[in-house]
Amino acid sequence: MARRPMPITGDCFAAACPAREVLNHLSNRWGGLVLGALLERDLRYSEIRARVGGISEKMLAQTLDVLERDGLIARTSHPVVPPRVEYALTEGGRALAERFFELFRWIGANVETYTEAQQEYDSRRASA
Amino acid sequence: MARRPMPITGDCFAAACPAREVLNHLSNRWGGLVLGALLERDLRYSEIRARVGGISEKMLAQTLDVLERDGLIARTSHPVVPPRVEYALTEGGRALAERFFELFRWIGANVETYTEAQQEYDSRRASA
Repeated sequence: MARRPMPITGDCFAAACPAREVLNHLSNRWGGLVLGALLERDLRYSEIRARVGGISEKMLAQTLDVLERDGLIARTSHPVVPPRVEYALTEGGRALAERFFELFRWIGANVETYTEAQQEYDSRRASA
Repeated sequence: MARRPMPITGDCFAAACPAREVLNHLSNRWGGLVLGALLERDLRYSEIRARVGGISEKMLAQTLDVLERDGLIARTSHPVVPPRVEYALTEGGRALAERFFELFRWIGANVETYTEAQQEYDSRRASA
């Protein structure tokens, strides 16, 4: 019996694939935005919080832990008083952040299309 | 006093921007995957459910409603017996789906990097 070759790529569409797990970390509403914020420059915790509108302290802390565990960001603690902690994209994180940023840019640039569609949908529903 | 110019683009980083609302529809874990599935071809409800591993009936129905309202997908009911309903990307949905698909492809292609980083992180934690 021929050995099944090792799959060389993961599949985000498969519920049990590790690729889906990473996708979930990024599509919990905050992961992608935090990566995108760090694309601009390395940031401290409070700077990320200011950049990503609406994120809570708790969600930011959780998101940073998960992204660090996935190897997408690196945390550096500078030995100064008071301690200064900075977050930066890793090489792999940067490649992914660029793809998210392109997505945000696209959604931002086309936001009027979506809001018009929403209004049209709602008025169709209301008159149905 | 000069009138402030209308912003021509939305900002996904801003909590109150309609662009963020659309991003949330897409990053609820399922929105992007459903768009990505429809990039391959138009699909019936049961076909989307089969393609997007792990999605529940309820979540799929909600996701389809939200994506239709945002103008990203169109629902066509064919007048046959039994009724046949198909979902297709709109033009705007296709542009966004392509960007999501590229993200999935990238995550899938690099999944080993992430799982290795996770293992390394976990063993660092365990020995700390």
